[in-house]
Amino acid sequence: MNATVHGRTRHYRTVTFDCTRNAVLLVEQRLLPHEFKIVATRNFRETAAAIRDMVVRGAGAIGATAAYGLAQGALAFRGRDLQKFRRHVDAIYQTLKAARPTAVDPVNAMNGVRAAMRAGRTVEEQQKLALAAAEEFASEDVAHCEAIGRQGARLIRNGMKILTHCNAGWLAFVDVGTATGPMYAAQAQGKKFHVFCDETRPRSQGATLTAWELAQQKISHQIIADNAAGHLMQRGEIDLVIVGSDRTLGRTGEVANKIGTYTKAVLAKRHGIPFYVAIPLSTIDWKLKRGLDIPIEERDESEVLGAWGTLTGPKSEVGSSKSARRTYVRVANPASGARNPGFDVTPPELITGIITPVGIFRSKELWGRRHELSLAD
Amino acid sequence: MNATVHGRTRHYRTVTFDCTRNAVLLVEQRLLPHEFKIVATRNFRETAAAIRDMVVRGAGAIGATAAYGLAQGALAFRGRDLQKFRRHVDAIYQTLKAARPTAVDPVNAMNGVRAAMRAGRTVEEQQKLALAAAEEFASEDVAHCEAIGRQGARLIRNGMKILTHCNAGWLAFVDVGTATGPMYAAQAQGKKFHVFCDETRPRSQGATLTAWELAQQKISHQIIADNAAGHLMQRGEIDLVIVGSDRTLGRTGEVANKIGTYTKAVLAKRHGIPFYVAIPLSTIDWKLKRGLDIPIEERDESEVLGAWGTLTGPKSEVGSSKSARRTYVRVANPASGARNPGFDVTPPELITGIITPVGIFRSKELWGRRHELSLAD
Repeated sequence: MNATVHGRTRHYRTVTFDCTRNAVLLVEQRLLPHEFKIVATRNFRETAAAIRDMVVRGAGAIGATAAYGLAQGALAFRGRDLQKFRRHVDAIYQTLKAARPTAVDPVNAMNGVRAAMRAGRTVEEQQKLALAAAEEFASEDVAHCEAIGRQGARLIRNGMKILTHCNAGWLAFVDVGTATGPMYAAQAQGKKFHVFCDETRPRSQGATLTAWELAQQKISHQIIADNAAGHLMQRGEIDLVIVGSDRTLGRTGEVANKIGTYTKAVLAKRHGIPFYVAIPLSTIDWKLKRGLDIPIEERDESEVLGAWGTLTGPKSEVGSSKSARRTYVRVANPASGARNPGFDVTPPELITGIITPVGIFRSKELWGRRHELSLAD
Repeated sequence: MNATVHGRTRHYRTVTFDCTRNAVLLVEQRLLPHEFKIVATRNFRETAAAIRDMVVRGAGAIGATAAYGLAQGALAFRGRDLQKFRRHVDAIYQTLKAARPTAVDPVNAMNGVRAAMRAGRTVEEQQKLALAAAEEFASEDVAHCEAIGRQGARLIRNGMKILTHCNAGWLAFVDVGTATGPMYAAQAQGKKFHVFCDETRPRSQGATLTAWELAQQKISHQIIADNAAGHLMQRGEIDLVIVGSDRTLGRTGEVANKIGTYTKAVLAKRHGIPFYVAIPLSTIDWKLKRGLDIPIEERDESEVLGAWGTLTGPKSEVGSSKSARRTYVRVANPASGARNPGFDVTPPELITGIITPVGIFRSKELWGRRHELSLAD
């Protein structure tokens, strides 16, 4: 999508590959929203570090990064010995996998690259196939998000006020995003609408990443405290909710997503406001039998007890330095601790529909269509 | 309640009066939770400034501060001319009233002081009556909170996990607090329980004030992001919700309180968790006919777009200075704005009961008992 740097607006992808330098190019997401910067990883170890250190985050984005990282490592191999090459590729695979051990996307993406490589008979052929497969993975990620956008744009009418939670935008994918896909497609169709971004404490991805994306894309929006959506719904100020999902259970229609998603679904149900979840088919888990079995990561309490920001704010006591360096402030009582569950699970009866690249389905419908949906992926 | 300063635990009230210095003593709430300090206002103008500048906040606390401020100003009058004295007192009244123009508590408290003064025939008699009436207002505020505590403590059983939102604790009143009253009373009865404090963005009164109070009182507690309560309720980790209220409509049973209260009530209803509101009778509005008519203050967007805290946190990049100076950091995308409604309204069907000093009532019952409840105040 677009980003404006030094007054110039250009189209960027979150993850791309530079063949001339054998480098993976990434939007450095830890600097956003205060600074937009593309970093180049020079070898697969740096690529793994970028995944581990959250330079890049989000399902599709880390999948593509791992796929490119595997190709990058393969391309760096010098020699013709296929045995040695395979051991080399195995080591790269393990390094990249270990960078985010609980994520499924890097593994799925790299398995695709390895499968494609098998058709090559020489090191050189396999190297070319690796890069082609990584490029294909990235292009498919974009195509899926664009298809989600086309499907979901039908739900957006002129003048609507839309609520979203966390960031399931282009920064979480190679481009376009899932929850934001319908918004970008509707904008391209000339529709006017307004987006409320939940700030999404404790990590504030709504206030930082989603708000930044929408601002770059010139979509009318405002950030709200996570506490405010209920009040806005009461006053008739929200017409539609669209969120993303980390994992959707194909068997039950339950949706795991960023903490606070469930609360918004409960509120939307009470107010008769449509609640949609936008997902690529790859995030459907066809195996797990109940949402209660989804492990909910308990994250570090420091996230809840304070906040990261820059000292350049309008009311800083420290001065008005233009530095975008982010600083942690302790907000909470120093003697108190916190609980910090990272995700929650929304049951199907609260979900109006699942927006996929191949159509919008009721979440209870997924299982009945599992053959069709698995093939479509 | 208790506060530990330099390792020594003492009992404090939020607002007291020092006769020897003709000074109002206040807990400087803007420094909490990072520093506990009692400040003395030397004249009624300084007292008005303390109300205006949020040194003191909360219904009962600003009521008592205004009552003491009026007595303080009256006591500073030199001479015997009753006419001059009355004009002097009128001017003080207007100054204190103007310090927080939308609040009803200072006005009600000062009206009580002025009514009591009328029984005095000389300036000196009226001065003494003013101080006595202010002392009585403060003592009644404490007595009301203690009575709320006794009523509400019945709801708390051993091992319970209780959710509260914002700060309706002793810092918001002269002592004890409303939502916290039942917790302190249950603790005194030897009951063990755990409290989850919603951090209560955007001003974080839960993470700062309520958590500080509970820590001082040695009550087991954890801060959670406002997003987390729904998940905890789903997993059966919350047994009871107790919140305060800025204004309860006697006619309809609707409750206006800090933004996010309504959301917690909706979640509690869905999970069959009792949701109680603890209030002194003085906050019941017997006139207003519908909650929609309660003006909802839209506060400055900078509250949502950033956070106030200290740089002494565990992960500060700036160093580990022990200074408690609070700093504002801008969290959100610099080019984005925010909506910031300060309060919301919870309808009676979501409220299990209203805890008052004279009993626990269904919110729909209030109007039928209006004569009894007005007299009891």
